[in-house]
Amino acid sequence: MRLSLTIEYDGTPFVGWAAQPGLPTVEGALREALAETFASYDDLAVAGRTDTGVHALANVASVVVEGGPPPERAAVALNTRLPDEISVVAAEEAPEGFHARHSARARTYRYRIFTRATPSPFETGRVWWLPRRLDVAYLVTAAELLPGEHDFRAFTPTETQHEVFVRIIESARWTRRGDHLDFEITADSYLRHMVRTLVGTMVDGIDLGPLLTGAAARSQAGTTAPPWGLYLVSVRY
Amino acid sequence: MRLSLTIEYDGTPFVGWAAQPGLPTVEGALREALAETFASYDDLAVAGRTDTGVHALANVASVVVEGGPPPERAAVALNTRLPDEISVVAAEEAPEGFHARHSARARTYRYRIFTRATPSPFETGRVWWLPRRLDVAYLVTAAELLPGEHDFRAFTPTETQHEVFVRIIESARWTRRGDHLDFEITADSYLRHMVRTLVGTMVDGIDLGPLLTGAAARSQAGTTAPPWGLYLVSVRY
Repeated sequence: MRLSLTIEYDGTPFVGWAAQPGLPTVEGALREALAETFASYDDLAVAGRTDTGVHALANVASVVVEGGPPPERAAVALNTRLPDEISVVAAEEAPEGFHARHSARARTYRYRIFTRATPSPFETGRVWWLPRRLDVAYLVTAAELLPGEHDFRAFTPTETQHEVFVRIIESARWTRRGDHLDFEITADSYLRHMVRTLVGTMVDGIDLGPLLTGAAARSQAGTTAPPWGLYLVSVRY
Repeated sequence: MRLSLTIEYDGTPFVGWAAQPGLPTVEGALREALAETFASYDDLAVAGRTDTGVHALANVASVVVEGGPPPERAAVALNTRLPDEISVVAAEEAPEGFHARHSARARTYRYRIFTRATPSPFETGRVWWLPRRLDVAYLVTAAELLPGEHDFRAFTPTETQHEVFVRIIESARWTRRGDHLDFEITADSYLRHMVRTLVGTMVDGIDLGPLLTGAAARSQAGTTAPPWGLYLVSVRY
C-alpha cells in the first residue's frame, strides 16, 4: 500500500532532510520509525529536501509499506517511534503512481524575521532575529519583481549540481505583523539556498532586477539568510 | 535609580521564578545578570512568582540599581548576560515607591491546550497536548461562573501558606482557534496552582459551582493541569 505522509518538524537538531550515515537527519529518523512500524517499506520520497536547520510545517513524503497498521493508525504509530522534533500530522492511502517529489506541482516556503529590539525566548531557532528597522516598503516592492519565470543562478552557490536555473515563481510577498516580518513564496521548485539568498539580498537592499536575468553571478547577490528562519509551509499536488 | 523590567521567559529549564540555592531559577539568572551589569542592586521584586515550568510573556520586576547603564540601555545590557530562555523586553525608570508585586492591580494568565490528534514539534513544552475532543460549550459555560469574588481553597494544595482564600476574578474565558483552546483569566492575585487546577477541573467536566463557596475540599476539584501550558501574560498597575 502506498502512503502519503504529512510531516511537521523542527529542523534545529537535524543536518537536514537527507539521510547521512552517522548524522541526525529527518529522513534517517523517519526510516527508523518506518522500519519499526511496518514489516517492510520501499520507495520513500519527499517533496522538499530541506537543508540543515530548516523547518517544515507540512512536508509530504510518499512510501510503499507492507504489514503494519492501516493508514488511519499509521500517524500515531509512527509518532510513538519518532523524536519530539518530528510529527507525522497525517497519513493517507495515496493513489497508484503518487510520488511525493515528482507529483508535486508547487511548494510554498515562509521565511520569518523578528525585528524586536530584544530577542524572544519563544522564537529562538525559529526566526532570523534582526533587531533593526527594515525598509518594509522596499521589501514589498522588491518581492513584486519575483512572480514569473526567471533565471536564479545568482541565488545558488556557484558550485552546483543544478543544470537548469530557471524557475517559475507563482507568488512572493512580504507581510508584517507587529515585530514579525514574513516572506512567503510559492514556486514549482527551487535551487539550493534560493529562498534564503533571495531574503538576504532583499534585506541587504540590493536591486533584484539585474540579478534575475541569468547574467549575474552569485557574488552580485546578497548574503544567505540563516536556515532557522525558513519553513516549508505546504506542497500542492 | 528604580527600574521596572518587563521579562519574557520560557520556563522549561527553570524550577520556577524564586531563587533556590544550586537550582536553575529565573530569579537566580536575573540576579547574576544584575550583579554583572550594575555596581550594586537591591530590593528586587516580581509581580508573578511563577512555578516550575511556567512561562511568562511579560512578567514585571522592580529593582533599585546603582552604577550601570541608563534605563534605555539596560535591557540590551542584561540580555547579553542572560540565557536564551530569558529576555528583558523593556527596562524603564520607575517612580519612587513602585514595587512590582505590591503595586500590581491585576495579573492575566493564559492556559494553552492543543487538541490536534498528533503532537506539534513547535508546541512541545508550550501547550498541554490533549488529543481528544473537548466539550468547548461546557468549558465556555463553566468559565462564566468565575468572574466575581469567590473562595478558591478547593483549587490550591491543602497544605498551604495562604491565609486568605478569597480572590476577585475580573474576567475568565475560553477561546478556540483551530486546534488551540486557550483559557485566559484576569484576577487581583492567585492561590498556588489555582489557574492550573481551575483548568484541570473544567477539563475533567466537574461542576465549578459548588467548589467556589469555600465549603469544598481540594479533593473535590479536578486534576492540576501541567505547568508547561501556563503563561503569565501581563500585569496591570
